[in-house]
Amino acid sequence: MSLSLAPPDFLAAQHYQRIARTLEESKFHLAFFDDRLAMPDSLGDSYDETVRHGIRAVKMDLIPILTAMGMATSRLGLGGTCSTTYFEPFHVARAFATLDLMIGGRAAWNVVTSLNDSEAANFGHSQHLEHDLRYERADEFIEVVLGHWSSWADDALIVDQANRMFADPAKVRRLNHEGKWFRSRGPFTVPRSPQGHPVIMQAGQSGRGMAFAARWGELIFGSVKSPDAGRATYRALKDAVSDAGRDPGQVKLAPPIYAIVGETRSIAQEKRAFIESLAEPEDSLTLIAEVTNFDFSKVRLDEPLHDEQMAQVGINLGLKARVVERSGKSNPTPRDFIEFSKRGTINEAPVFCGAASDIADQLEDWFTSEVCDGFVLSATHRPGAYEDFGRLVVPELQRRGLFHTDYAGTTLRENLGLDRPVVR
Amino acid sequence: MSLSLAPPDFLAAQHYQRIARTLEESKFHLAFFDDRLAMPDSLGDSYDETVRHGIRAVKMDLIPILTAMGMATSRLGLGGTCSTTYFEPFHVARAFATLDLMIGGRAAWNVVTSLNDSEAANFGHSQHLEHDLRYERADEFIEVVLGHWSSWADDALIVDQANRMFADPAKVRRLNHEGKWFRSRGPFTVPRSPQGHPVIMQAGQSGRGMAFAARWGELIFGSVKSPDAGRATYRALKDAVSDAGRDPGQVKLAPPIYAIVGETRSIAQEKRAFIESLAEPEDSLTLIAEVTNFDFSKVRLDEPLHDEQMAQVGINLGLKARVVERSGKSNPTPRDFIEFSKRGTINEAPVFCGAASDIADQLEDWFTSEVCDGFVLSATHRPGAYEDFGRLVVPELQRRGLFHTDYAGTTLRENLGLDRPVVR
Repeated sequence: MSLSLAPPDFLAAQHYQRIARTLEESKFHLAFFDDRLAMPDSLGDSYDETVRHGIRAVKMDLIPILTAMGMATSRLGLGGTCSTTYFEPFHVARAFATLDLMIGGRAAWNVVTSLNDSEAANFGHSQHLEHDLRYERADEFIEVVLGHWSSWADDALIVDQANRMFADPAKVRRLNHEGKWFRSRGPFTVPRSPQGHPVIMQAGQSGRGMAFAARWGELIFGSVKSPDAGRATYRALKDAVSDAGRDPGQVKLAPPIYAIVGETRSIAQEKRAFIESLAEPEDSLTLIAEVTNFDFSKVRLDEPLHDEQMAQVGINLGLKARVVERSGKSNPTPRDFIEFSKRGTINEAPVFCGAASDIADQLEDWFTSEVCDGFVLSATHRPGAYEDFGRLVVPELQRRGLFHTDYAGTTLRENLGLDRPVVR
Repeated sequence: MSLSLAPPDFLAAQHYQRIARTLEESKFHLAFFDDRLAMPDSLGDSYDETVRHGIRAVKMDLIPILTAMGMATSRLGLGGTCSTTYFEPFHVARAFATLDLMIGGRAAWNVVTSLNDSEAANFGHSQHLEHDLRYERADEFIEVVLGHWSSWADDALIVDQANRMFADPAKVRRLNHEGKWFRSRGPFTVPRSPQGHPVIMQAGQSGRGMAFAARWGELIFGSVKSPDAGRATYRALKDAVSDAGRDPGQVKLAPPIYAIVGETRSIAQEKRAFIESLAEPEDSLTLIAEVTNFDFSKVRLDEPLHDEQMAQVGINLGLKARVVERSGKSNPTPRDFIEFSKRGTINEAPVFCGAASDIADQLEDWFTSEVCDGFVLSATHRPGAYEDFGRLVVPELQRRGLFHTDYAGTTLRENLGLDRPVVR
């Protein structure tokens, strides 16, 4: 949720419900939000610019937001990010299972391990957990969550009031999990939803992240820089899924893109130039410091980071690797980080720009050549970017037979073509 | 949420939205739910009967449920229970603040410290935290939550896009809390709601609980056994609030009651007899074991608990004290616990039964003689009990000028007559 272009009602349910209705009218499968458990304040240990410019300064709990969106829609999937580092698995399992019930089997959980020391400081820790330990904890966390979600058989509920039979105790089990990071006994207190349980989302970027995604993920939205790179990632992910003993058809890859569409190509190009003109380098550095957990204010703008500093730059999202590769420097400057990461600008993701048919051509190319199974449409502005896309691009994709004209079912799993998970 | 009489749709939003609309049509100030982080399974370390009979076997996360109810209403307050023992204050502060924004300033948080080892076991602990330590933790927990809720001044937001001014950083502060139980730095990531922040609810029962309620509570729903006992509790609470340096008018006491209303007195009495006939002693013992954290299956039904066992019976809700007092035995039997606690039956709380005017008489008596500032209407069945009360009793109370004919405002604080909290 970027609020740098916050509308006046961004703190009210109506705003999110309007976005949801817009997406459902165009038959989008899913709306999902990222999350962060602190506002960006790593740059100079200050939140002044963050608050002044609204650089992701407001981060609300996603469960009430997704529920509100669910009450205004009936088919749209609704996904929220939740960290495995600062919560207990019983709680996350219960919150998302309840959300999934309240919205009739349309929920997804985007699993993240969190990023920076500012988040740690809000939750009583002085430092963010080290990368590999975070993933080790995340593996066990998700094991506990999926275990709880598989505690009630699909036919456990009876609800026969005349005979005082609520449910069959033989079809409800204790989890009795005892691991390195967690113990959780159960039985879980929430029966299964119409789709079994929420869909598992994951970014699946780094080597460790891709292994995690291959093991647990169902909807992966790792970024793709070009069709060729995308094809390699796609193959690697599907192979990793097979190696993990799962069906590659049950794991969908949908990279983020921006689409700037105009009634004509030149209108679209003018829109793009306008949007690019809004980017502020100072905002970029605030956001780079946030995701790398490194205070770039310690280094002058044109001074190369020395080796020790480079080692401190966190590797989440592969941002550091991208800057090193594109700048051709093993010790880039803060200005290089701004220029080559494109953080905080639309050019951080591929930008598809043009008339509806131009954008449809590009989407078709990626979609039909094993670059991806779908797309995450990042919004340049909300809900306007979704309205434009729905009004101009969706009909063109439908005309080409590339996009459904209606939802396949009522649950998110039905709509994504994911099997209902069996109780293990 | 008792589900022993679960309707077929109790897992869907529509069920809770129907309850909410029913309550709002009758101008109720607030709907609120209890919570527990485990199903009752202390009795014989078994959940069989719990699941079979649906004795509070399903406990869902309240945030999505309250949000769903908020989307179907515009004035009704919505309160949820959340424990200070198994969560982090930053999370609880953010979840309830977001809920409060999404429902336009109508949220309340019922602060509890949790009850039993089964809850502990779901959250990785082998034993529930000892009573006084729980309250010590709870005091610090609520200090952190209120601190975060007071991090954004009411006028911090600017949202001037033309000048890229989102908010005034001078009006947003870090909390920098460092205590015995928690550290949390901030700044908090959610601005204030239309009512400032959620209303604080508390049961305020035991000596320690009343001190806690006097320090933090705004809406207290401790139970009252008789008008005389109630007047004493009312005075003690208001005095304790004064002693804590707060305005007693800003703390409202509303004890739970059942109201069984009929078109005639004899219809109501027949309803009461029918409802009482539904109680099952085995369910009572399951629920007594749950709230006392003691496994009553270790003792034969007519065998007195010996002193060591009595010491193990938890004191939450004053249930043990009540049984000792009413049975006249310092070592009651399990059967005494069932008979004198009335746990799991309507007779656990005062029952007002009769025609509308009978019930209005009793409510008027309590309300006008400093027994309480209002009532928590426990439901014998939902939403039927609320429909009956709204259809028959509310008009009678309105005729007597004892109950509002419309909401005083849009926020819960306006409707309860509670001041908007100032940023400290």
